[in-house]
Amino acid sequence: MTSHSPPLTMTAAELAEATGGILVGDGGAAVRAIAPLDRAGPDELSFLASSKYAALFEATEAGVVLVTPELQDSQGTPRARIVVAKPHEAMLALIPRFYRPVMRPPGVHPSAHIGRGVTLGGDVCIEPGAVLEDGARVGDRTWIGAHVVVGAETEVGSDCQLHPSVTIYPNCRVGDRVILHAGVCIGSDGFGFVTQKVDGKMVHVKIPHVGRAIIGDDVEIGANCTIDRGSVDDTVIGAGTKLDNLVHIAHNVRIGRLCLILAQVAVAGSSRVGDGSVLAGQAGVMGHVNIGSGVQIGGQAGVICDVPDGETWSGYPARPHRESLRATAALFKLAGLMKRLEKLLERGTP
Amino acid sequence: MTSHSPPLTMTAAELAEATGGILVGDGGAAVRAIAPLDRAGPDELSFLASSKYAALFEATEAGVVLVTPELQDSQGTPRARIVVAKPHEAMLALIPRFYRPVMRPPGVHPSAHIGRGVTLGGDVCIEPGAVLEDGARVGDRTWIGAHVVVGAETEVGSDCQLHPSVTIYPNCRVGDRVILHAGVCIGSDGFGFVTQKVDGKMVHVKIPHVGRAIIGDDVEIGANCTIDRGSVDDTVIGAGTKLDNLVHIAHNVRIGRLCLILAQVAVAGSSRVGDGSVLAGQAGVMGHVNIGSGVQIGGQAGVICDVPDGETWSGYPARPHRESLRATAALFKLAGLMKRLEKLLERGTP
Amino acid sequence: MTSHSPPLTMTAAELAEATGGILVGDGGAAVRAIAPLDRAGPDELSFLASSKYAALFEATEAGVVLVTPELQDSQGTPRARIVVAKPHEAMLALIPRFYRPVMRPPGVHPSAHIGRGVTLGGDVCIEPGAVLEDGARVGDRTWIGAHVVVGAETEVGSDCQLHPSVTIYPNCRVGDRVILHAGVCIGSDGFGFVTQKVDGKMVHVKIPHVGRAIIGDDVEIGANCTIDRGSVDDTVIGAGTKLDNLVHIAHNVRIGRLCLILAQVAVAGSSRVGDGSVLAGQAGVMGHVNIGSGVQIGGQAGVICDVPDGETWSGYPARPHRESLRATAALFKLAGLMKRLEKLLERGTP
Repeated sequence: MTSHSPPLTMTAAELAEATGGILVGDGGAAVRAIAPLDRAGPDELSFLASSKYAALFEATEAGVVLVTPELQDSQGTPRARIVVAKPHEAMLALIPRFYRPVMRPPGVHPSAHIGRGVTLGGDVCIEPGAVLEDGARVGDRTWIGAHVVVGAETEVGSDCQLHPSVTIYPNCRVGDRVILHAGVCIGSDGFGFVTQKVDGKMVHVKIPHVGRAIIGDDVEIGANCTIDRGSVDDTVIGAGTKLDNLVHIAHNVRIGRLCLILAQVAVAGSSRVGDGSVLAGQAGVMGHVNIGSGVQIGGQAGVICDVPDGETWSGYPARPHRESLRATAALFKLAGLMKRLEKLLERGTP
Repeated sequence: MTSHSPPLTMTAAELAEATGGILVGDGGAAVRAIAPLDRAGPDELSFLASSKYAALFEATEAGVVLVTPELQDSQGTPRARIVVAKPHEAMLALIPRFYRPVMRPPGVHPSAHIGRGVTLGGDVCIEPGAVLEDGARVGDRTWIGAHVVVGAETEVGSDCQLHPSVTIYPNCRVGDRVILHAGVCIGSDGFGFVTQKVDGKMVHVKIPHVGRAIIGDDVEIGANCTIDRGSVDDTVIGAGTKLDNLVHIAHNVRIGRLCLILAQVAVAGSSRVGDGSVLAGQAGVMGHVNIGSGVQIGGQAGVICDVPDGETWSGYPARPHRESLRATAALFKLAGLMKRLEKLLERGTP
Repeated sequence: MTSHSPPLTMTAAELAEATGGILVGDGGAAVRAIAPLDRAGPDELSFLASSKYAALFEATEAGVVLVTPELQDSQGTPRARIVVAKPHEAMLALIPRFYRPVMRPPGVHPSAHIGRGVTLGGDVCIEPGAVLEDGARVGDRTWIGAHVVVGAETEVGSDCQLHPSVTIYPNCRVGDRVILHAGVCIGSDGFGFVTQKVDGKMVHVKIPHVGRAIIGDDVEIGANCTIDRGSVDDTVIGAGTKLDNLVHIAHNVRIGRLCLILAQVAVAGSSRVGDGSVLAGQAGVMGHVNIGSGVQIGGQAGVICDVPDGETWSGYPARPHRESLRATAALFKLAGLMKRLEKLLERGTP
């Protein structure tokens, strides 16, 4: 979430120095923003990192372009080129020079609701309508966006960003440097019921959820994700793990450290995902399943059994990726052979 | 989002005139609401557009029913029938006669938070708790629902409806006549990280997102959808496109004009969808994929490569629909032949 | 959503009495909380219900453990064991002894917005920033969380819990004892458009949605779910049905009583689901489909046709579970036979 700073200008010569790159062309060419090749204007910086985009480079109006050594002689007319080994990483370093985060000056807005026994760290920023229930604790420099609710006795660490309308239920824990995007819900009751007869008729009786949801340090959680609290155990998201938007994490799940969980993934109750694993978009993991460390799960895969460390699985039901690919290939081949196969079988034994 | 108006009555004769239909039966039969055949009462209007519902028509208590010419003689006892070519379209024209939208009188609620340099058009309605951050701009007659947050420097056009708890991050743009349903999040950071060693240990370093999310005119976005902002480029939803609920649109995606994106679809980063395409429910589109114009993607399909203009694709991995159907048919046939096939292969060469 | 009560202690002897179990070991062993075997300390109660967890039992530091008769002699050193037939159900009865719900004392917060003609039952609790639009009705003892919006003329029953940032559109109905988790949206317009030429160009014209969303008694709806209102008909969730997080229910859908709908399921327009059916996670149901009563639909299944009462279906397209399993098994077997099969067919007729 960033905002344009008051216009700042850098020349091609300054950009070359800042990135440790080699300047080719007009060192005085000045830019004041960053844009992709096909939208950049003469006062903007762009980059070319793959020959796939050579045509865009040829037509670009960008004033200055970062290029790889291999692509430095590509056809095109920017006033200057800066040759760097990794344009993406150079860009990462330059972005903060042109853009700065929206300022969130410290202070508690008068319309925020601060309960009894709430502890606030230094330099917190509490926006309009935010609700900190009794006994909530918020660390230093944390930003609590508008209409965020931090439940009773819940603890939020330092240097966190809670975007608008985040809800954290009571008795949860959020680490330091955590980013929660708008609409995230943490600590809702898990989906647990005991189906039994009450007064002569079957009903689904709710299992009280008294565990916590615990979010590790440096976690980022995308917009409108839902992380249920544990039933008796806790739900845990490990440090440094990142969740994309609309992800569902059920009760008692343990996600390891440094995982990447892409959009609309669902992990059902009590499953475990080891450190550094990647679940691609819309994948689903059944309950009570163990996914190892360093695992890659393909998009839309349906994981219904344990997956060993370091493996790549895909498909439904999920299998080692190579097997899934082979099965898919066989299927499409089969479709073309079906008539002949049926004929062959019709004849009975050959 | 509509509300019953104070009871208004129309007679069958008036309905026939209003729809250009032919009256059969009692022209004086009066109705004051619309309901489906199986729930309508004597003072309600209903419709029969398919012979599939002939049994419901026979049993209906509706006072007046719109029917197609083919079905005008169906068994049934409503006091009047109105014969029209397209009952659904006639209904569309009649609904505003019986129902009127909830009134949102212009004004800024005293509990709304209006930042510095905010520009408000004429006749805007700003509901309780809404937050317009510094430099936000809102066009004429736009309704900003309760607890909506419009980020710094974000622009919202005229005649828009922003339902409660919508969050738009700073520096985004929303066109005219746009409807955003409750809980929509626009402009959250995309899921972009560079995994690198920092101070001797691997971490996922966040890529700052400085692009915008741009929503075209006449777009409608369903409840709890998430539209990420671009990284350097912008994320764009074309004019007239409609999104169902819980859809995820990732960073740098371009959706064309007049598309229909059904519930729980996810489009991953930097993919493109051409004008007039339809993505059915729960479909997923991988990153960096081009879907053409006038394309139809089936429900739950997983698109992992480009799709040419005008084609219909389905399945996982998505293929031309005809191929997918053929593969599925072959698979279920195969299951029945498997034993004989194995026996045949066992015998070795025939 | 629960909170620790001031420490309460129960001894093993008291626990045996409360559960009707048999005490083995030190009746004086006292506990004051509940935890899973691998995290419990000497002053905590845990349980062992499956031999799968025997290793955890052996290593546990729990002071007291509930065990089944079969497992009562498992290796392990808790100070006391309580032998009960069903440890899970015994636990269910004990949880309220150790934890109590967060108190929500009755009252209307001064920052809540109460429209004209709003009716409030006895002992309601209305939290900060909640908005009850004109004519809304709320039953006795219902809790309306922070920033909840209850639309005009909408009725919410007694003993309900509406967690923060729930939005209910105007003219909807919510029964008694309903729990709506944070971010739930009820009554948004369904996804209905008529594509027609207007002023010479094709557009998607919005169908006004004048039906209601009706939520039965004892329903629980998970975080960030979306339930659209009906177009002319109503959308109905039957009494006692439970929805997990991020579920989408489209316009005019009828869900029966006592259903369980797991996370990220989507049910498209006008479909019906009978009483007591279970839709597993990420399943999708096409529009205008009838699913019977007592049906089980597998995770990620894609239902595209009617499903008879009592059946279990899975896969895409969904088929009776046995057929799906057989097809999947045949597919993976085929992959291994493909080369030999091709060779056989190459030779032409045997």
